[in-house]
Amino acid sequence: MTENTQVLLKRQSDGVPVAADFELASAPIAAAGDGELQCETVYLSLDPYLRGRISGRHLSGAILPGDLMAGEAISRVIASEHPAFTAGDIVAAHSGWQSHPVVSGDAARKIDTSVGPLSTFLGILGMPGLTAYAGLLRLAEPKAGDTVLVSAASGAVGSLVGQIAKIKGCRVVGIAGAAEKCAWVTNVAGFDDVVSYKSGELRQELDRVCPDGIDVYFDNVGGDMLQAAMERLSLGARVVLCGLMAQYNTTEMPPGPNPAFIIKARATVRGMVVYDHEDLRDEMVQHVSQWLREGKIQYLEDRTPGLANAPEAFSRLMHGQNVGKAIVVVSDE
Amino acid sequence: MTENTQVLLKRQSDGVPVAADFELASAPIAAAGDGELQCETVYLSLDPYLRGRISGRHLSGAILPGDLMAGEAISRVIASEHPAFTAGDIVAAHSGWQSHPVVSGDAARKIDTSVGPLSTFLGILGMPGLTAYAGLLRLAEPKAGDTVLVSAASGAVGSLVGQIAKIKGCRVVGIAGAAEKCAWVTNVAGFDDVVSYKSGELRQELDRVCPDGIDVYFDNVGGDMLQAAMERLSLGARVVLCGLMAQYNTTEMPPGPNPAFIIKARATVRGMVVYDHEDLRDEMVQHVSQWLREGKIQYLEDRTPGLANAPEAFSRLMHGQNVGKAIVVVSDE
Repeated sequence: MTENTQVLLKRQSDGVPVAADFELASAPIAAAGDGELQCETVYLSLDPYLRGRISGRHLSGAILPGDLMAGEAISRVIASEHPAFTAGDIVAAHSGWQSHPVVSGDAARKIDTSVGPLSTFLGILGMPGLTAYAGLLRLAEPKAGDTVLVSAASGAVGSLVGQIAKIKGCRVVGIAGAAEKCAWVTNVAGFDDVVSYKSGELRQELDRVCPDGIDVYFDNVGGDMLQAAMERLSLGARVVLCGLMAQYNTTEMPPGPNPAFIIKARATVRGMVVYDHEDLRDEMVQHVSQWLREGKIQYLEDRTPGLANAPEAFSRLMHGQNVGKAIVVVSDE
Repeated sequence: MTENTQVLLKRQSDGVPVAADFELASAPIAAAGDGELQCETVYLSLDPYLRGRISGRHLSGAILPGDLMAGEAISRVIASEHPAFTAGDIVAAHSGWQSHPVVSGDAARKIDTSVGPLSTFLGILGMPGLTAYAGLLRLAEPKAGDTVLVSAASGAVGSLVGQIAKIKGCRVVGIAGAAEKCAWVTNVAGFDDVVSYKSGELRQELDRVCPDGIDVYFDNVGGDMLQAAMERLSLGARVVLCGLMAQYNTTEMPPGPNPAFIIKARATVRGMVVYDHEDLRDEMVQHVSQWLREGKIQYLEDRTPGLANAPEAFSRLMHGQNVGKAIVVVSDE
């Protein structure tokens, strides 16, 4: 019989995580108890917020050495002891980095596989999708004609933010890094313009592509990119603070932009945590899956085959070397 | 005949302005042209935002050496060439630091002297009043039971913010400096608690007086006080950024709080400029003057007699040595 392969955290590190910070383990596959589902993981999601959990700083709790690495996954139900599920169902659950999880049926979400590709339920139809949808439409309230700037624009959240803003009639500018990411942002995702933070001239570039200022800034990064955007806010601008990629791998809490920029622009700055917007999930899946079927939404996936390669893929993600939503293919669909 | 006494800016300085940065001048009193009012200044307002104008950094424009110092004043109309005004009317206008201004009638606001003391139209019934009223009620949307923290709590804006929040059923905590200011904030203005930023233990003090976090922070200061408040925001907190006393006298733009605090609290941070809220002025005067007549609002004035003493009074204001709204008494009511 197949074993349950797991990836555990081996040690906490202060810098960018490396593969040696994790270790593989193996255990017998557990049976499903009452109300539980015995599952086989198909796709595992790797997300930047996990960095904070490894160092104990994320609001959803710390992962300690010896613990199973946490993460959301799409799985196939092998055996169900919960009345709402049967064998063969596809579910999303926070079942962690393991091949054969047993999860509570109450904590699993059944996936309607007819509305979009399975893996997108970890991306544009999943948590990143909800983050983009709620963050942009609920918190930033974009109006047609607004200039919307998005950082990490080729990422799972950023690319969807920009494409939804385009659908809503905004002018959309992305910030990305590598040339191939920048090219995808404009050529495939259809952003109006893109600047590379690696150009060394971020401010001049932003002045060029946002000559009338920034009406909406959707920030996934923090740090100097947030500072540069804040300096260029237009009157009544809205800023959504959604991620802090620039400081996930540091132990200190670096300062932020001077408040004068917020005052000068009479801006509204809002902190975003996706868990607060669960009520929008059905609406998001309905709209985004429809846009996807209509060809209005493009997405990129960075697929890594095999659970044993998850640590290295996570390290690449934290180095910004992934191209698109980072997913580990644990078993065949 | 009396001359028009004026105070001009003599030189720009980088630090806290001193009296020698200004000079007195004298000119014949001008006649009112068509549409103008010849006035006699009664009360002149000294406001922190003038510091930014001296250094050319304020959004309402720079004051250069040789220029008349700007400022709002309450004046008596001596002669009117504008159909809406007659001699003896009391008006508010941005007529500057001079004893006998000639102002455009279209830029003057007639004062209804029946609703409150004349000088309060530079304070709680004037621009600081509108700042407090609009900033708190429109931007911070306080709910009964909220813990509202206000910096510069004995100042014109801060003291009114706190008292309106009390009227709306909030628990109100102030931050002030000198012991006499702190005492006034709780004993007279009726705040629930006060902490002194001079205690050297601001964070411990805030933990003590805001044990459940801060629901609304109304910031007039910036700097470390803003940082300390941001660290203690409760979920869904609202922060109004209204003033930057901590950096008015510096030439650099110091950094602000790390964005993680805004994300963690899912906070909404809004930049406030009073000019955007002129539409609330009549409502503000109506409500605040009624609260004043009902004895629900206390206010402090720091009066300096004589226009020639305005520079020294302004320097005291910028050192935080004023106690209450800084007003220069230019002539008798």
